Parts: sequence; structure tokens; C-alpha cells
Amino acid sequence: MENIIIPQEMIVSLEKIVGQSFLFLDEETRKHYGHDETEDYNFPPSVVIKPGNTQEVSEIMKLANEYKIPVVPIGGRTGLSGGALSIYGGIGLSMERFNKIEIDEQNLQGIVEPAVITQVFREAAFEKGLFYPPDPSSQGSCTIGGNVAENAGGARALKYGVTKDYVLNLEVVLPSGEIMWTGANTLKNSTGYNLTQLMVGSEGTLGIITKIVMKLLPKNSHNILMMVPFFKSAQACEAVAEIFRAGIVPSALEFMERDAIDWTLKYVDGVSLDIKDEVEAHLLIEVDGNYPDMLFAEAEKIMGVLDQFEIDEILFADSEEQKNALWKMRRAVGEAVKSNSVYKEEDTVVPRYELPTLLAGIKAAGKKYGFHSVCYGHAGDGNLHVNIIKGDMNDENWNTEVPKGIREIFELTVSLKGTLSGEHGIGYVQKNYMDIAFNDTQLQLMKSIKNIFDPNNILNPGKILPDNL
Amino acid sequence: MENIIIPQEMIVSLEKIVGQSFLFLDEETRKHYGHDETEDYNFPPSVVIKPGNTQEVSEIMKLANEYKIPVVPIGGRTGLSGGALSIYGGIGLSMERFNKIEIDEQNLQGIVEPAVITQVFREAAFEKGLFYPPDPSSQGSCTIGGNVAENAGGARALKYGVTKDYVLNLEVVLPSGEIMWTGANTLKNSTGYNLTQLMVGSEGTLGIITKIVMKLLPKNSHNILMMVPFFKSAQACEAVAEIFRAGIVPSALEFMERDAIDWTLKYVDGVSLDIKDEVEAHLLIEVDGNYPDMLFAEAEKIMGVLDQFEIDEILFADSEEQKNALWKMRRAVGEAVKSNSVYKEEDTVVPRYELPTLLAGIKAAGKKYGFHSVCYGHAGDGNLHVNIIKGDMNDENWNTEVPKGIREIFELTVSLKGTLSGEHGIGYVQKNYMDIAFNDTQLQLMKSIKNIFDPNNILNPGKILPDNL
Repeated sequence: MENIIIPQEMIVSLEKIVGQSFLFLDEETRKHYGHDETEDYNFPPSVVIKPGNTQEVSEIMKLANEYKIPVVPIGGRTGLSGGALSIYGGIGLSMERFNKIEIDEQNLQGIVEPAVITQVFREAAFEKGLFYPPDPSSQGSCTIGGNVAENAGGARALKYGVTKDYVLNLEVVLPSGEIMWTGANTLKNSTGYNLTQLMVGSEGTLGIITKIVMKLLPKNSHNILMMVPFFKSAQACEAVAEIFRAGIVPSALEFMERDAIDWTLKYVDGVSLDIKDEVEAHLLIEVDGNYPDMLFAEAEKIMGVLDQFEIDEILFADSEEQKNALWKMRRAVGEAVKSNSVYKEEDTVVPRYELPTLLAGIKAAGKKYGFHSVCYGHAGDGNLHVNIIKGDMNDENWNTEVPKGIREIFELTVSLKGTLSGEHGIGYVQKNYMDIAFNDTQLQLMKSIKNIFDPNNILNPGKILPDNL
Repeated sequence: MENIIIPQEMIVSLEKIVGQSFLFLDEETRKHYGHDETEDYNFPPSVVIKPGNTQEVSEIMKLANEYKIPVVPIGGRTGLSGGALSIYGGIGLSMERFNKIEIDEQNLQGIVEPAVITQVFREAAFEKGLFYPPDPSSQGSCTIGGNVAENAGGARALKYGVTKDYVLNLEVVLPSGEIMWTGANTLKNSTGYNLTQLMVGSEGTLGIITKIVMKLLPKNSHNILMMVPFFKSAQACEAVAEIFRAGIVPSALEFMERDAIDWTLKYVDGVSLDIKDEVEAHLLIEVDGNYPDMLFAEAEKIMGVLDQFEIDEILFADSEEQKNALWKMRRAVGEAVKSNSVYKEEDTVVPRYELPTLLAGIKAAGKKYGFHSVCYGHAGDGNLHVNIIKGDMNDENWNTEVPKGIREIFELTVSLKGTLSGEHGIGYVQKNYMDIAFNDTQLQLMKSIKNIFDPNNILNPGKILPDNL
């Protein structure tokens, strides 16, 4: 697909739909909506439009389908796989005016529009005594719509599941302009094919999400947070599986290599930690519930498990402030690591017991292809973020050797019964590794599904599926 | 589609694949595999075959696809929507030789073949200190493969979710004979379209499931079970939502109308209850966890909520025997109610706060169309089983008036943001109500998905989608 030119008459029609003040052709706006958090890419849409309701989205889609112009839905632009990049230009469909929240206290559900910031939604639920668990590190700026599109996870996924586990029903606009609900507002549903879960994680390639019905839980009143320094990275990884095998399901179990912590402590204000030189990695472990005695018992069990490993003194957060500081640090790791250099980030995921093998494989690939990596992530669910740092590597090696190393890392994850992405999606930057996870039969099925929903391939084209399919 | 005749040469080829001792043409065997638990239907397959491994399934599918002969996968034949009925004859593919279980204690996963009985799998996990929560009432005879195909639920779904929430990855054989995995063995996965969840609940219409990777949890050590008699059915329904609104997530919350209990007490041995004449319904409530003190506190909170309703004395099960007796009774309700008469069972589901409205609507429909219904089910997740009893109703009313009443009940569930089936599937008997839950756009999408996987429509044809689509 070549870069698109939108006919002037179509621009006029689009302006009629959304109104003059919600259509933008200027370079500054287009560039602003041309990037997310994926490496240093910028693919400006040809035009940015900001519809105000589902009906407008429907009319836009009908028009785009008629003119065969790509439409890329845009949320908080915090994505790490390039899902929101307008790689062929076309219409950048910013959903930012879709920001209503309704909390249904009677049914423990949230009816939420896609542009609502994840943290805003979590707080709205919290105020009513309810709990929306998914908490991507970017929760302060990412949107619920983007979370659904990428099937975002976060630190609480090991106990509470990921975004998909909370989505009950979706209002979507198809490329044809038709508006439909994917399911029902029920906790159980065995009524036809699961269109809801087909839409979740489809990265804006099957339909435009305009409304989301989320399951909510009663909120927990207490938690205990502990930071555990390990003298050996591999042992930190091993401890992860051992904690579960002892019958404990923590609400968070995060892994950070030494570099990740050091760089982050320099990057964020107001957090300090006294770490021995010999410490190679940390686990940040949280348990939550309503009964403090139960949490103390769980924490003690965890300490019993940790006894068998070489660890330094455990830090127990003794106040809300200290908890917030530790979480602030953990959430800033990604940004901190990336602030140092050009980078590539992979979102590897394996069954959790395989983490030590994965980590060792990543370091071996780095050695072989000459790159430095900083690893951290949601170890409790086997999801390890691999940040490959360009540093002073020359461009040629960066562009030719590093992708070979990434391919080897992905081959390793798949051989361990894992896969390419745990929570970031495939989007633009991982699509040409999809042949590692899927054979031609599987990829052709996915392509056919795409074709049913979007026969003219106008919805976020050039994402997920490999170029040569 | 007319009833199928399988060419003799194909029978010979099938026999070559599975061996003579695993192919059956006699009437007795065909009739045996011609029914599940759906009303009094019997649709014998033309031939019953019992493949022994995935490769054999693949060869069978290739052959069936070439000859365009329907294939109906058959599990425990406990289904209530007719998913396993060979309505056009063809090949009845009994998966009963697929019965291996592997428990991966390191990753808290079970790798299980489809014919494993649900209870056997639950016990295998339990022996390793692990927990597979889904527990359909038929758990002693239904199979894991059938549970996946119908997205079965059970009594613990309100806290722990349904079958779909445990399926991580599936090995399936497509109608083309191709063997593929749908995903990865990971807790998180944002890698392409969710083929796993498309397969779950697809009732054997998209592929033959030959292996299932299930997530397991650490098992809980304690629970409290209480049986609460309500003087008003409507109040029992209202109490359900109130318990959640008080911040409690029970591990089971079951509703039984008076008739359901009375009939069951007559039907099962070894369970007796002393129930006042004025009692209209019961809730069976369970809380579970590892800390007895916490459970007592939860039970007290529940009793606090129940105080506002007109209830009789609560029965607390004081031994494992009594717990087992109460659960045995609850699980037998379906069979007991159905043993009285010809019946039709609907599997309505609504957001849980709407239960009282649903129950009232069901009774009103019964009055209008002259049928008696007995209702019970998993009220904690809004899933109410409606058993319509033929009793001494004449055949004409049974065949013309009752379907009108069912249609009105389904229209009510959908207007309450609920849907047709919570856990039984649509199968054969509910397919012509699908237009109530879905419009033509949605149904056409489903039909197109079916067509991608199964272009010759050989896999369990005549299920899920309405006849006139």
C-alpha cells in the first residue's frame, strides 16, 4: 500500500460529519497524532478527526469504506508495538471525545467509553467501593479503549487477569458503518461465537470500539508490599514459580534487573533505596485482601519460600507513601530505561517456571549479537519486558544484527510454549516475527477473519499480520 | 440438508484409519451415541468411530471433507442444548479414547485430553494441591472437551469464572485435517486474534479439540456452606445482588425454588431437610479460602445482609458429609426436576441485579401460555435455569404455545442486557431463537467465521446458527 492521498471532496464530507473544529490538516497536529511510545517512529495521518459520538464514527467508516481510505483508531498513544501508527497515512481517528464513565453499582459493572484514562476509570470504580484490577504501567495516560484493543495487562494480572477477563460486551462500529454489540452484559455467555473476545486484542483492525462494558469486583481494603533484593538474577526468577507452588497467589510479583532499578532511581524524584553492590535483581511482591491477619500469614509464607534463596534484607513498605513510591518507581522503569538511548522493546511471555531459561537465553543472544538488554516485568505471569539498548552500537549492527537476536529470543519463547507478546500487542514492529509463533494455516485463518470484518482492508492496515502473508 | 448416506468405500477407509474394533455400524451403538441430555431427542449417527489419537482425527477429517460427510464430535453426552446430536446422521466422532491427564506442577497447568471426565480432572489437580474451579452439575459424567465446546460454567463461576477463563491453549483438528494449536501456554497473550476463545464455546462447529491446556490455581483449604430458606422467592433473588454489594464474593450462590428442592429430596437418597410450608425458595451459599477466621467473618457479613429479608433459620453444614449431601442435592436438581415429566430447559442469564425481574417475567409467561416452570441455578452470576414441565399439557399447546412463551422469556432476558444461554450453549434446540439476541449483521459475521473454518459445512452442521440464515 502506497501512502494515501485523501480526495478533497472526502475531506469536505468528513468535515460535515464532525464539524470544522474537530478536523485537522495542519502538520503539527498530524505529527502529534503520528506517534505512540514505540521506538522513535512518527507516521502522521493525512487528516486527524475527532468524532463526538458513535453515529459520527459510523458515518466516517462508511465514507472511508467507500473511498477505501485507511482509518487508524487512536487512543492515549502509549502503545509499545505501534498499533496507533498511521503507517500509510489516511484518517487518524482520535477517540478522545469518548470519555464518559457510568458505574453500575447494582450489577458491579462499568460502562465506559474508550478514551477514558485507565486510572480515571479505576478511581471512579474505587470511589463506589469497586475494583477494576488491570493496571498497565502507563495507567495515568493510556486509555481503556487502547487497553481493550491491545489486551493490556499490568502488575495485577497474575491474580486478577488481564483486560480481556473484564470485558463483558463491546459496542463496535464495523468498517461498513454498521454499529453492533458483540455480546451481552453477563458474567456467563454461551450464545454463539465469542465476538467479544475476537475484538479484544485485535488492535483496531476489526472494528472501532465505541463503548465497553466491564466487570468490576468489590474492592480490597488491605495489602502488604515488599521489595526483595536478590544476589542472583536467576534465583529471583526461580523464586517466582516457588511462591505459587507454595499455594500463594500474590496480587503482584514484579521482577527488575539491577540496571532497571539503578536507572530508574536516577530518573524519578522522591524515591531512594539503599542497594548493596552485589544485588543483581529485585522482586516487588504484593498480597492483597480484606483481612490483615490473613495478609500477614501470606507474607510469612512468602518469606519462608524466600529463605532458600540468596537474598538481602527485605524492605516492607510501612506506609501508603512508601507503597506509592515503590509503585511509582516500578511504573517508571520503562520510561527510565528508554530515556537513556534509542531502544527496542520486546514483550516476551512464557509459562512462569521457564523464566530463568528465558532470561539466560536473552543474555546469551545479547552476547552473540553484541547488544545490552535490560529486563523487567510481570514475572508472576511469565511476562518479561526486554529492552534492547542501542547505546553506542553502530546503525548497521542495530538494523541487521539486533533483529537476528530478537528472532532467536522469540524462537526461544515459543520453544518454551510461550509467545511473542504478553500485553503490548504485535502491531507494526513485531508483525514480521509472527511466523515464529504461527504457521501458515493459523496466519491464513487470522487473515480470513480480518477479511470478513474488513474486506477493503481499511481498518489499521499493515498491523498484526506479516507483510508476506 | 437431507439425512446422509455414507458410501461403503468411505466406511472401508474409515475402518483402515481407526481399526475394525473402533468403528460401529450397529443400531444399538448408533442409538447410544444418538442422544445427549436434551429433552427426549435421539439422532443416531450413520456410523460411530472412536479415534485413538490426533493423527487419526486428522485423517478422518480429511476423508469427511473430501466426501462432504457431517462429523459430530461426541463427549460425555450430558449436553442440554443438543450440541452432540447427529441431526443429519453422518459420522459420530466419539472422543472417548482421548483421556490422558498431565498436571504441570511447575507452571500450575493441566494438559488434558477432551474425554477426561471433569471430576476426574478436578481430582487429579486436587491431589497435587491444585484447583480447577469449573464444576458443572454433571461433573461426574461430562467431559472437559464438552465443557470447552459449550463453555460450561457451574456453581463456582461467580468467583472463579467459567471454562473459558481457564483455557490457555487448544490443539484442534480443522475440517481440512490440519492440526494446529490456537495460542500459547501462557497466562497473558496479545499475539494475533484470539483463536483460543473463538474455539471455546463454538460447540464443535469450528474444529475438533484434541488437547487442552488449562490454567490451575493453588487449592483452598477451607469453606463454609450455608443453606438459607426464604419465605419469598423474589427476596431470595434480591439478596443475591445485595451480598455482592456488601463487598463479598462467595464461591457459590445457588438459587432453588421450592418445587426444585421438594422434587429433589424425593429423588436423591441420603439427604433430608426440614422445610417449613411457607418457604418459597432457598439460597445455597459458600465462601472459601485458606483462613477459617476470614471465612467466619465473611459468613457473618452475609448473615448481616440476610437480616433485611424474611428468612427462616439458616442451616450451616457442620461436616464434610453434610456439605457433600447438600451439594449432591443441588447437583441432582436438574435430573430430579426432569424425571417428573417431559420438559424443555432454558439457560437464561442476566446481569445479577435483574434476577427478580427475570423470575417474575418467567412466571408471567407461564401464566399467559399455560405452563408450569421450575427455576433454579447459579444466581450469583445471574444464570437461571428454567425448566418448563409438560406434565399433563396436551401436545398441541406444548408444541405451539410453549415456544411462544420461551420466545417472550428470551426477549425479556435480552431487554435486561442478558442473553439466551449462560453455560449450556445454543446447539440444536435454541438456534431458532438466536435472532432475539443478534441482528443480521452479527449472525452473518458468525456464519462467515464458520465458513472460514469449515467451508464445506461438515462440522456439526445445523447447530448454533438459525435455519433461515
